[in-house]
Parts: sequence; C-alpha cells; structure tokens
Amino acid sequence: MGIHELARKVKERSIKLMGAQSDLKNNALRIIAQALENRRDEIIEANRKDIQRSERQGLPSPLLKRLMFNDDKITDTIEGIRSLIALEDPVGKTLLSTQLDGGLELYQVTCPIGVIGVIFESRPDALVQISTLCLKSGNGVLLKGGAEALETNRVLADIISEAANRAGIVPNWIKLLETRSDVYELLKMDQYIDLIIPRGSNEFVRYIMENTKIPVMGHADGICHCYVDKSADIEMATRIVVDSKTQYVSVCNAVETLLVHKEIAGEYLSVLKKAMDAKQVKLIGCPRTLKIIPIHAASDQDWEKEYLDYKLSIKIVDHMDEAIDHINRYGSGHTDVIITSDKARVTTFMNYVDSGNVAWNCSTRFSDGYRYGLGAEVGISTNKIHARGPVVLEGLVIYKYKLIGNGHIVEDYAKHSRSFTHKRMDKKFPL
Amino acid sequence: MGIHELARKVKERSIKLMGAQSDLKNNALRIIAQALENRRDEIIEANRKDIQRSERQGLPSPLLKRLMFNDDKITDTIEGIRSLIALEDPVGKTLLSTQLDGGLELYQVTCPIGVIGVIFESRPDALVQISTLCLKSGNGVLLKGGAEALETNRVLADIISEAANRAGIVPNWIKLLETRSDVYELLKMDQYIDLIIPRGSNEFVRYIMENTKIPVMGHADGICHCYVDKSADIEMATRIVVDSKTQYVSVCNAVETLLVHKEIAGEYLSVLKKAMDAKQVKLIGCPRTLKIIPIHAASDQDWEKEYLDYKLSIKIVDHMDEAIDHINRYGSGHTDVIITSDKARVTTFMNYVDSGNVAWNCSTRFSDGYRYGLGAEVGISTNKIHARGPVVLEGLVIYKYKLIGNGHIVEDYAKHSRSFTHKRMDKKFPL
Repeated sequence: MGIHELARKVKERSIKLMGAQSDLKNNALRIIAQALENRRDEIIEANRKDIQRSERQGLPSPLLKRLMFNDDKITDTIEGIRSLIALEDPVGKTLLSTQLDGGLELYQVTCPIGVIGVIFESRPDALVQISTLCLKSGNGVLLKGGAEALETNRVLADIISEAANRAGIVPNWIKLLETRSDVYELLKMDQYIDLIIPRGSNEFVRYIMENTKIPVMGHADGICHCYVDKSADIEMATRIVVDSKTQYVSVCNAVETLLVHKEIAGEYLSVLKKAMDAKQVKLIGCPRTLKIIPIHAASDQDWEKEYLDYKLSIKIVDHMDEAIDHINRYGSGHTDVIITSDKARVTTFMNYVDSGNVAWNCSTRFSDGYRYGLGAEVGISTNKIHARGPVVLEGLVIYKYKLIGNGHIVEDYAKHSRSFTHKRMDKKFPL
Repeated sequence: MGIHELARKVKERSIKLMGAQSDLKNNALRIIAQALENRRDEIIEANRKDIQRSERQGLPSPLLKRLMFNDDKITDTIEGIRSLIALEDPVGKTLLSTQLDGGLELYQVTCPIGVIGVIFESRPDALVQISTLCLKSGNGVLLKGGAEALETNRVLADIISEAANRAGIVPNWIKLLETRSDVYELLKMDQYIDLIIPRGSNEFVRYIMENTKIPVMGHADGICHCYVDKSADIEMATRIVVDSKTQYVSVCNAVETLLVHKEIAGEYLSVLKKAMDAKQVKLIGCPRTLKIIPIHAASDQDWEKEYLDYKLSIKIVDHMDEAIDHINRYGSGHTDVIITSDKARVTTFMNYVDSGNVAWNCSTRFSDGYRYGLGAEVGISTNKIHARGPVVLEGLVIYKYKLIGNGHIVEDYAKHSRSFTHKRMDKKFPL
C-alpha cells in the first residue's frame, strides 16, 4: 500500500473512531496494556536488535540511551496506559448549551480532531504513549519513527493495532510509516492529516515546522529564563536557579539565561557563582557581569542558545521591563520565572512575558504535564493557538456545534414572526 | 515605515495591550463608537469616493453593494461596538486551578493571542468589527483591505486608532496596510503575526490558506448539505430545505446539495420540486433523481461546487451511511443537517459527520454567531484545531499557565523529600 492510500485509509477509519464509546476505548487500552505485558520478550528482543545495529552504526550514546526499551521502561509504559484508562473521556463533553428558541437547542460538544501525524526520533515509548492518547481521544494516528528504532517500533505498532482490533476498534486507525521519504510525503498530506506532533531534537522539530502547512503542535527550542528581581531573597534565588539549571540539564524546561536586576547583582552573583561552581556549571556573562564575577564573556548569540548542558549565560538589567523585553525577544515562549518578594511586580511580569508558562519563586523545571497534575503529556507547545504549555489529552480534541430543532427555519426570525430567546441552559447534550 | 518595521512595531505594542484592564478597553471602545458617530460625514464622503472610483473601474454590482458604507451601516456598526462593550472580557479568566503542593499553586489563565493579521475584501464594516474585537480581546491587529475600499478604510482605521489613543491605549496596536504587495509580505511574517483571519471570496481565502505558514482561521468553501432520511416528515423537510437554499443564497451556510434516502425520494422529491419551482430554484440531480423528477443531470463535479445561487444539486442515497460518506468526502466541514423522525439516527449522523456545525430538523442557515447567541462573529472556521464553527471573542484568546511558588524546587520531589498533592482548587488567579 502506498503512503497516500495508507493515509487515506487512516483518515476514513478515524471517522469511525469519532463515535467510539468510552467503554470500548478503555477496554481496548486494557487489552493493549495486557498485550504489552504478554509480549515483553518480543519487544526486548526487537529492541536488542535495534541497539546492536545502532551501536555498529555509531549512534551517539545519548541517543542509544533514549532508544533503550528495557523491562523497566515497558513496566512504566504499561503503568502509563493504566493511568490513562482512569482519566475522564475528553470526547463528548458539553462545553456550552443555549436555548435559541422553544424547541431549538444548541450544544457545543467536544469531539476528536481526526488524524494525528506523529513524527518522532528514537524513544519507542513515545510511540506507545502518543498512540494510546490518540485512541483515548478518538483520533486516528499515522506514526513515523526513526530508522534506528525500526524493529522496536514495528513490534509496538503491531501490538497496539492487533490488541485494539481484538477489543473491537476498527482496523487501520493506526499505521506505522517506515521510510525516510515518507516524512516528506506526510508533511504534504493536509487532506488526510489534521495535526502533526513532532518529538525529537530542536533541528528535527524546526525542520518539520518549516516544511508543512499542516498545524504542528510542539516546540523547537526551550530557551527559558530566570529573572532575579532587586527584592529577591538571595538564598531562595540561588536555590531556584541552581535547580532550574542542574536538576536535569538536557531538557527543554531547564534555564539557559539568568537575568539579574542591577541593584542586587553585586551581592547575588557572588553567592550564585559559589553554588554553580559546586555543581560544575560553566557561567558566561555580559560585560557588567564580568565586572562582578570572574567568568568568560557571553556573545549576543548566547541569548538565543539552548545549551542543554551545564552552562548558563548571565545578563544584568537596569529594570524589570528590560528583563521582560529580553525574554520576549530571545526566549522561546516556553517557561520563564521571576524571583522577587514584590507581588505587584509579579503581576506585570506574568502579564507581559508572552510565554506558555510563567512562574513566581519556583523552578522552571515544574512546567510539565505530570508535575502540573494534568496527566500524560502529548508534548509541550509554544504555539499561540489551540494548546499552549504542557499539552495533555484535552489538546487532542476540538468541538462541534450540535443544533436540535423541530422544523425551525431562519425566515421566521428574519420576518420577525419568531424571535430568539438565547437562554443559557447548562444541560448535557441529550443524544 | 516599511511593512516589516510596521509589523514589528505592532508586535511590540501588542505585548503592552496584553495587560490592559477591562475598563480601559471598554472605555476605548466607547470613545471609538462616539468618534464614528462624530465623524459620520467624513466616513460617508470617503466611501462615496471609493464607490465612484469603483463604479468607473467597473466593479461588479454585488461587490459595490458590499463596499457601500452608508448611514444605516454606520449605525449598525456603532450598535455592534456597544454590544461588544457589554460582553465579558475574555482575557484573565481562570480555566483551571490546582494546588501542586503547599504554597505551590498552578493557574491556567486566558490571555490574548498576540497579533492578528486581518485580510479582507470590500466590506469596510469588517474592518471596524474585527479590530474592535481584537481590542476587546487585547490583540494587536494588522489590517489589509481591498484597494476598492482604500479611502473608507483609511478614515475608519484613523478613527479607531486615534480614539483608542485618546482613551489611553498604546499607539500603534493597529496598522492599516495599503498596497497589494503587502499581502504577500504579510503572509511571510510569522515572526510578528500569530493568526490570520481572511474575509472575502473563496478564491481569496484559498489563496491565503495556501500561501502562508501562519495559522489561518476561516473557511474557503461552504458546501453544506441537507440529508432527508427515510422517516422524515415531508412537509418539514420541504420547509427546511427551501429555507436552507433560498433564505439568502449568497452566503456560506446556504445548502448546496440535498441528499435523499431512496425510500422517501419518490414521494418527497415531487413535493420539493413544486416548492423549489415557486422560488425559481434550478434543480439538478443524479441519474436516479432524474427518473423521479424532470430536471437536468448533475455531474460529479457538482458535488463539490458552492453555487451561492438559486441552484441545488440532488442525490439519492441507499442508506444514511452513504449520505455521511458523501458529506465527509465532498463537504467543506461547515454545516450539515439531517431531517428525520428517528432520534437514534441523529446520534450517528452527528457523531460521524465531521463538520463544525451539525443539526437536526432545522435550517442550515442558523449556523452563525449572532443566531447562536454567541455575540459578534470573527468569522466561521472550518479548521480542526483552536476554534471551529462560528468564531467569536473567545476564538481570539489562548491561555498561559501561571505558577506561584515560595522557593519550591523540583529536586525535592525527585528525591521524594516532598510530594505533589495535585488538588483541584476552583480558585480565581489572585494576582
């Protein structure tokens, strides 16, 4: 089957999935979890082949680590599916209900988006996570994984497809694409794919965003900031910045640039440097920073770099507005934190920093779906429409308006022989 | 000022608008309404020039009609602004609040999107309507109107900008672009524009959708269907289809194709033909339709045509699934109606017809923001993400996550020295 035929089929089947009942979908998820349990050996064997081949081909060790899908990861993945089953069905929720006139009732009801295209590198767990999220939200899914995980992805897609089928879900709602040229084709298929979710390196995500007209939900860079205001508690500011930088350096919500108010810089930066030295973080700074602590100079390009490493750039600002402007100019709209004891300034910072996550007196590292208590994460979005920040199940649905009448026609209202009541009802859609 | 400089400025100013209080915005809207009132003569004079020039240039009469901005239209426009003032501010609503741990509270709060690019043909009222909706929702706006409305648009943009300025709104949050090449540039400026709203002919909207990576909210075609099921009430089905077709033929939510269940076709189509003849609607049909009523044949291309005229294509289907498949294949995801007395079939129709508006036993013509009781309409969207169906004020906002802590760091949770509580709070964001 060619990729177009395949995508057309998934689109067609995604329609059937739109009306799937919660029980059917949850039962399918249960059978998928069980099948992953039953076919552990097969998954591990496939993954072993992928790892051996990738080692031979010289895949860098961080990527090899991500590719690894061992017993523990399988257990985590199954656990993830069990939590997903417990979540409320995002489909079929009545968001608004209005009586337009006697017997004419309008309901705004959530429904699946349609077909989600998922393009990911390494991490076979992303395949299971996103496709089960798609199933729970009633969406078809076209998956394209990296060549390095070929064997593992095949087994996983087969397990999910076969188990869902046994539960009574229409076949072909999920399809795995395998060749590199498929990505290029997939990006062009706006007639079949409604939304693309990319998971991978910055360059990879940026390539996808720049080469498709299909909406893409995700983020390329995570250039996050901590702004230490003049009235910050020095000890607290140190603890938060150290955590934001070092708790896990290779993730998108780690801090990359520290902005410091000039009035506190002298005292704060010396304390910070000691703490960062202890963690072996390399500091670089603007000319004014260099006059306070003995570190190397940052270039202008540093303000737009995501190090994903034990490295932090520092800039001293004259006032909070300069910090806000800097963040809006160089940041990626991901996560930005203010550390201050002045509440009024927090309001300003949070209103004018144009990012998906803004925070006061805590680490940048809190911004993810799990820590936010939102459930399994589809990804983190720096988009300005649809869904922003950590995207969970709710990001995979949209709504439609459902109108129930009894022979009502518009001409009666145009002629003023009838008129609209427009009464809020707070009623669940009855059909 | 070049267009890039102009767009950069609007982007910069849109940030300032993000924190504008409801009172400030409503007061600005009041002053804008007053200024439109005060400068009526100037508007009418500018519009007269546009109309005279366009007549000389041979603009077709439907377009001339749309271009007309007379006393009545000014009054309607001012009335529209007064209703907008009365609406709740869509910005600053707390959608979700969760205690993550003692002293660590997460709020999901609505906020403006940023900069909206509005591209429209004729209709100067669209300029006022959309820019006041943008102001109310705290968005900057870049406007590009048609050359035919140049003088009118200039006066209107000046009135809005000047009046808002007097109210204390930052200058340069609104800018009018004037040359045709500006459209092309505008479509490329994804660094400054967050969302494009096109208002104009199908070809115009399609061109925009196909030539930008910026999200576009709107619709090109409105290929709407009525499906008359086997158990439909013949009299009701006739009344609804006549209204859907003839109440106003040149609009996107008028019906273009009628699908009829084979078991009712014999009886229904004869009745319908009489009613349509009385309204001088030209009917064309599939081969089976032609055996029942004496009309011309429809070609396969007819199923994907938006006539916007007194013309209707008819197709007989063997069962409801065929109707649903036809709608999903040829429709534009706008508005589709089922006429039946069988409730169970309505559920199926509404679940599986993948359109923004689905309706039972009433006219397609109800699907707009005003009739739905939702307020002033930004446009009707056939998108699958963000906003679908009639888009109103709420379609111009997104949300950000605001997290309030007190020195909280992630390492404490990673080490299990603290744990998350994740308690729903139902609390308004306090800052």
